[in-house]
Amino acid sequence: MIFQKEITIKPKSRGIHLITDEIISNCREINNFKYGLMNLFIKHTSASLTINENADPTVRYDMEKYFNKIVPESDAKLYQHTYEGLDDMTSHIKSTLIGTNINIPITNGKINLGTWQGIYLCEHRNYGGSRKIIITIIGE
Amino acid sequence: MIFQKEITIKPKSRGIHLITDEIISNCREINNFKYGLMNLFIKHTSASLTINENADPTVRYDMEKYFNKIVPESDAKLYQHTYEGLDDMTSHIKSTLIGTNINIPITNGKINLGTWQGIYLCEHRNYGGSRKIIITIIGE
Amino acid sequence: MIFQKEITIKPKSRGIHLITDEIISNCREINNFKYGLMNLFIKHTSASLTINENADPTVRYDMEKYFNKIVPESDAKLYQHTYEGLDDMTSHIKSTLIGTNINIPITNGKINLGTWQGIYLCEHRNYGGSRKIIITIIGE
Repeated sequence: MIFQKEITIKPKSRGIHLITDEIISNCREINNFKYGLMNLFIKHTSASLTINENADPTVRYDMEKYFNKIVPESDAKLYQHTYEGLDDMTSHIKSTLIGTNINIPITNGKINLGTWQGIYLCEHRNYGGSRKIIITIIGE
Repeated sequence: MIFQKEITIKPKSRGIHLITDEIISNCREINNFKYGLMNLFIKHTSASLTINENADPTVRYDMEKYFNKIVPESDAKLYQHTYEGLDDMTSHIKSTLIGTNINIPITNGKINLGTWQGIYLCEHRNYGGSRKIIITIIGE
Repeated sequence: MIFQKEITIKPKSRGIHLITDEIISNCREINNFKYGLMNLFIKHTSASLTINENADPTVRYDMEKYFNKIVPESDAKLYQHTYEGLDDMTSHIKSTLIGTNINIPITNGKINLGTWQGIYLCEHRNYGGSRKIIITIIGE
């Protein structure tokens, strides 16, 4: 059994956002799967998806701070692809470091995350606009 | 055909560990799949999974050294989320850099890794405890 | 319905290469799937796969430059695993930072990438040789 749906996530500010509830409320069909895998795929090259701590918002602030440090915009002068500003090439790099897709097991009709896990959308652009995510579930 | 099972990996010391044999011995059901995909998902935010060199233990030492350099605990003063020590936020960051899940093809009843590939569990905490991994196999 | 095939990618120079067309032309069976997920898995520990910008070649140059900066070969003296040269351990590290496998949704017989997305093979070795990729498609 397979289910697929494209959803649109409203524009988010630059930084890291917990979207677990937004995914689940957009995909009630999860309930139809006893066992399965859910794949989330973001159709963009300057935003990314990861799984991390869901309870303390400071983790998201610290994470954004870290990625700005490790991919500094002050290095943008080293890059050729900066047509759209200092956050252009740096966003592509962050996207590859973090990744464009994640898989989450489904068990008894629910996504089977650990107690402290949530789904992050990482918006790397200053003005990224809305973002499209394809949800694909395979299971039974 | 789908198979899913949660396993518990015994506590490991901080660092990078080859767990290929531990996964296979916990999941004989791999043999039942002619073709498929196995997903390993770690239900934690301060440990991670990756695939890398399986033969020389120095790769695991060097890898741990690299991630300690690129996510230094001396930076912990920059972070807010350090309630549990210098290895708290840094472990979350490493978890996102490396990733919480991997997919491995199954071919003729065996995981189809390259000659030099093995499955790594990366324990980022000083005292991480046991770790839960969900194994999901989809195939035929 | 499941499809699996191992393909061989001809040797590439060190750096980052767009291989979307090479994957598609090697896997016409994508057309047989209305909905599905395609997994690409590279059977090596010193090359990697990611998804990023498909239009401007300077993104690939900048990306290579970034990963050489963040995993510098001048650090190789810190590592034990350098039997095959300065690009040995650094290649393993890059492989884990970027990842060995990606999943791409399939919709109506085509891979459903965003407008600006393409598949990158990242060759981290100076002389990497040909690379094997396993394509697994699950869907209907």
